[in-house]
Amino acid sequence: VSFTFGCPAKDIVANLARRGSRVVVTVTSAAEAVLAAEAGADALCVQGAEAGGHRGTFDNPARPDDMGLLPLLRTVIATVDTPLIAAGGLSHGNDIAAVLVAGARAAQLGTIFLACPESGAHKLHKEALTDPAYPGTAVTRAFTGRPARGLVNRFVLDHSEAAPAAYPHVRHVTRDIIRAAAQAGDTAAMFLLAGQAHRFAREQPAAQLVRSLAEQARAALNQAIHRWPTG
Amino acid sequence: VSFTFGCPAKDIVANLARRGSRVVVTVTSAAEAVLAAEAGADALCVQGAEAGGHRGTFDNPARPDDMGLLPLLRTVIATVDTPLIAAGGLSHGNDIAAVLVAGARAAQLGTIFLACPESGAHKLHKEALTDPAYPGTAVTRAFTGRPARGLVNRFVLDHSEAAPAAYPHVRHVTRDIIRAAAQAGDTAAMFLLAGQAHRFAREQPAAQLVRSLAEQARAALNQAIHRWPTG
Repeated sequence: VSFTFGCPAKDIVANLARRGSRVVVTVTSAAEAVLAAEAGADALCVQGAEAGGHRGTFDNPARPDDMGLLPLLRTVIATVDTPLIAAGGLSHGNDIAAVLVAGARAAQLGTIFLACPESGAHKLHKEALTDPAYPGTAVTRAFTGRPARGLVNRFVLDHSEAAPAAYPHVRHVTRDIIRAAAQAGDTAAMFLLAGQAHRFAREQPAAQLVRSLAEQARAALNQAIHRWPTG
Repeated sequence: VSFTFGCPAKDIVANLARRGSRVVVTVTSAAEAVLAAEAGADALCVQGAEAGGHRGTFDNPARPDDMGLLPLLRTVIATVDTPLIAAGGLSHGNDIAAVLVAGARAAQLGTIFLACPESGAHKLHKEALTDPAYPGTAVTRAFTGRPARGLVNRFVLDHSEAAPAAYPHVRHVTRDIIRAAAQAGDTAAMFLLAGQAHRFAREQPAAQLVRSLAEQARAALNQAIHRWPTG
């Protein structure tokens, strides 16, 4: 069972453990990692600022931290002993190998799977990931009231500054607009969640993607050990 | 010879090469990497948004990109063939090993050396790197008119929003204020450049730091290859 947007109480984690579940909590800072470790989480998903979709921050009104995955991993490793899953901006097996070497025990990839046929993302959302008209991403509260990273479209540019830290209230306000935009095929007002490596998302079966990620990761480790022999 | 804040013209790079110099250009995006590769740079310093100090962006008025080091490396690798030096938020040998595995040929570390006795940083700047009163960093134009990452102090909070993209003009305006603050021992108005992994900077001789980074990097590769054997 995996949590985000906060940390479950100790007794909830213990209850899940008694029923045979492993509990993962998403964290975006060392302070959140301490809370999750104290609650008894089996592993932490360490979400770097590169990640697409909502930031998993516990405290929504706070300004979301912009710490990148590598320094965030380093900070969390220095703070807790819990096994870590690295997430945010990863799109290639070399990236997976990199975060394992950095100290994570696993890697979690999202955006790169968005264009797979198995993904339920809107066709226009899938296409926008590699559209040169959408070269960049930003973190915005404009769609839901919680910081989320997505492609920079007109909606993000027009409404980010005014968007309050009110989740899920803002989501209720924007839902119909976003739906209407999708029906009209207007990507400028759609909610185009995407991490920073979105341009590498390709339409291919998820199983095939997983296989090539694993092969790339092995090859990257192999190449590194040959190039820099550790003796 | 290493450049930042822009790319030298092709004939300048060729001139340096004729005189036996290797030329490095700092880049913060794939577009800048293309320009630098076309100019004939021998290597590119790929500066992730995690980096302390000034962003090396070619176009100062543009909003600086916030791409983290791993997705930026991936994007630049997919764009040019030039060897890459990875920079930004690296503070441990494991981070160095990670960026080598990700595809860089070398790593560049700055902030972690700031607290070394060989560093010319102000004593209060060195101390602030690990001061719990300064837990976070931000990118600001408040000190010089160019985006630079430093510890979030009162000066950053008060002046970031109004600071124009005017470099070095803003630097001339703030220089005396910053100097006076340093003389008064007032870190709230000092220019406390720092990357996102600043909290790991420790006072130790630079040579000793380099040795332990190298040992950590080798150990990290070794551990990864044992934990995930590549066969």
